[in-house]
Amino acid sequence: MDYKALLAGRTQLMQANAIREILKVVGSPGIISLAGGIPSPDSFPMEIFGELTEKVLATYQSGAFQYDLTEGFIPLREQVAILLEQRGIRISPDAVNITSGSQGVLDAAAKLMISKGDKIALEAPTYLGAISAFNPYEPEYVPMEMDDEGLVPDALEDTLKHHDIKFIYLVPTFQNPTGRSLTMARRVRIAEIIQSYNALLIEDDPYSALRYRGEALPPIKTLAPENVIYISTLSKVFAPGLRIGFYAAPKFIREWLVLVKQGVDLHTSTFNQALAAEYLAGGYLDRQLPKIIEIYRPRQKAMADALHRQLPADFKVSQSDGGMFLWVSGPEGLDGLALYRKAIENGVAFVPGQFFFTDPAQGHETMRLNYTMADEATLARAVEKLGAAVNQL
Amino acid sequence: MDYKALLAGRTQLMQANAIREILKVVGSPGIISLAGGIPSPDSFPMEIFGELTEKVLATYQSGAFQYDLTEGFIPLREQVAILLEQRGIRISPDAVNITSGSQGVLDAAAKLMISKGDKIALEAPTYLGAISAFNPYEPEYVPMEMDDEGLVPDALEDTLKHHDIKFIYLVPTFQNPTGRSLTMARRVRIAEIIQSYNALLIEDDPYSALRYRGEALPPIKTLAPENVIYISTLSKVFAPGLRIGFYAAPKFIREWLVLVKQGVDLHTSTFNQALAAEYLAGGYLDRQLPKIIEIYRPRQKAMADALHRQLPADFKVSQSDGGMFLWVSGPEGLDGLALYRKAIENGVAFVPGQFFFTDPAQGHETMRLNYTMADEATLARAVEKLGAAVNQL
Repeated sequence: MDYKALLAGRTQLMQANAIREILKVVGSPGIISLAGGIPSPDSFPMEIFGELTEKVLATYQSGAFQYDLTEGFIPLREQVAILLEQRGIRISPDAVNITSGSQGVLDAAAKLMISKGDKIALEAPTYLGAISAFNPYEPEYVPMEMDDEGLVPDALEDTLKHHDIKFIYLVPTFQNPTGRSLTMARRVRIAEIIQSYNALLIEDDPYSALRYRGEALPPIKTLAPENVIYISTLSKVFAPGLRIGFYAAPKFIREWLVLVKQGVDLHTSTFNQALAAEYLAGGYLDRQLPKIIEIYRPRQKAMADALHRQLPADFKVSQSDGGMFLWVSGPEGLDGLALYRKAIENGVAFVPGQFFFTDPAQGHETMRLNYTMADEATLARAVEKLGAAVNQL
Repeated sequence: MDYKALLAGRTQLMQANAIREILKVVGSPGIISLAGGIPSPDSFPMEIFGELTEKVLATYQSGAFQYDLTEGFIPLREQVAILLEQRGIRISPDAVNITSGSQGVLDAAAKLMISKGDKIALEAPTYLGAISAFNPYEPEYVPMEMDDEGLVPDALEDTLKHHDIKFIYLVPTFQNPTGRSLTMARRVRIAEIIQSYNALLIEDDPYSALRYRGEALPPIKTLAPENVIYISTLSKVFAPGLRIGFYAAPKFIREWLVLVKQGVDLHTSTFNQALAAEYLAGGYLDRQLPKIIEIYRPRQKAMADALHRQLPADFKVSQSDGGMFLWVSGPEGLDGLALYRKAIENGVAFVPGQFFFTDPAQGHETMRLNYTMADEATLARAVEKLGAAVNQL
């Protein structure tokens, strides 16, 4: 059979990408990987899963294993409404929806809104998982300039002035890949801009709970509620393998997103939603989060210190108060791929930053470094190897 | 904001459908519902979930809660390969993929293959969940004639001769909504036809394990392996709320389906896959399945007997050896919606059969009756009310 003839036009944009090929060596023995983007298993509350399961069985019985509402399991939506209120987002549990990871709502939003050729505005660089959710719907991307304080508001205004933008996609806090956060002043300004242009923002916020210092910044959703789909997840503060995401969206959009999700997976695992509901209701998150932060904070510091020690003065390391990544920009003209190959020879892997840009001409001098998956000593050793690779290049 | 202006063209085919409006009354007090399509909670192995959780924690530890392969959790794929072999499908665990319910692979297959206007051939009537997975990709449907033995092979051949069909979608065993199964002779003939036309079949098989009498029939996948994507699920033999589906597809298609799934939900819940792996590996399914059958078999019989007692001779009830549904065809000219309203007045609900046809002119004299959600006495009473409604009409 000629299977290739069966492919839809949209698969053009879905080719397995170069990054996978590049990263194939990452798991090889003798290589310390800073290339990951996943939480440490040490951050999972392993000791309570038995207890949580017992609670779920006692409380919900067979209801935890039955088909359930596409909108989400009601006890979890109640708990997430409380969580959102702590972040300044006041909505009723009815208006909270659960998805299969935040990936689930990125896919649903793209399916709902993107017609072929529609323009999506996003940070340069941006989160790769969003691109892989959006690409099958054949959008065009309008990348916008960032600096140390996150997206540059003028770049957003300029983009909205000159392009017909379907939606904007941002990770405002501890961004993947850069670790950067939008300042308060910029949040206010961005909220004003999207309101004045009647633009829709998808605000993706997986990391804000992982704050190692400084004060919490409010979601843009709190500043422009009718213009924002706010997305978050329990993957970084409970367990990613349970695939629990959630979002708060304007009513019209929300009702459509539910209809879209119904066709994709009917609903998210009832059992896992029930576990998540008990995790939140029982105060387990409030006890676990400080433990997670105590694991990651010294790792971030160890990596940042080592980078400042080991890298030449013309390498710039992002300032970041939380999340999972640091972002390094080398001097202009640095070939990140060549550095990657040299680093592998030295026994350390990272993700060359160019893969996070939708414009292939950008980011060749950058790299994303993850610090959640190794302890401080290992991170220091890894950065030493990276420094050696830089010197050899 | 004008949210409506944000909708993609594909949403045209995704309007909330009439069936939801119709079924809103189903949950009202005093109404016995034969309208459901879900397993009885009595069929869930409630007593073993604590034990399974302990096994998962002991065996996989934090691995059960971490991000995992898009293809599926390896221990589950190994177990599903054994399950598939029992159904006559011999493939290596590498070639088994897990999805978030069988809905997940229906969505992925549609996303992979359907360009706007592509033609999908399907049984008339067919499974509604498949339609809701396919619609967002804007296909056209070519419905094919069924009789008591399932799809009429000549209708398939005629369709493939006269239309350019992207793929065929069938539920060959204990079909939803009719309960019908393709005979062995027809399976052989259909396998020949799809091979001779180089056509791709999506064979959806959620129900074949729920066989109450007679011998198992082989999946069409065993007869034309390179032409079939075989889909099944643990929803009817373990717990639907865990959202575990699986499929076996030709290599080229499989690799693409994995890429598609990655953009949609990264992967299916690791923890639930681990529970499913232990459910299969520990022999729990082999012990639970006879119990499930012992719940449903007498219910099916009670409903069939009551229908034969209560309905006039010009009403025809489908013969079915398993699954979850019986299908009733009234005399030509019967208005199923009028009967539905009359039945509601009498305190019983069902799904008017017309909703399962893609051609709105078809099926007005039919109805789908579910027998898994009520006990024998309740089913007899429900059918009595239905008989009264027929007489009143």
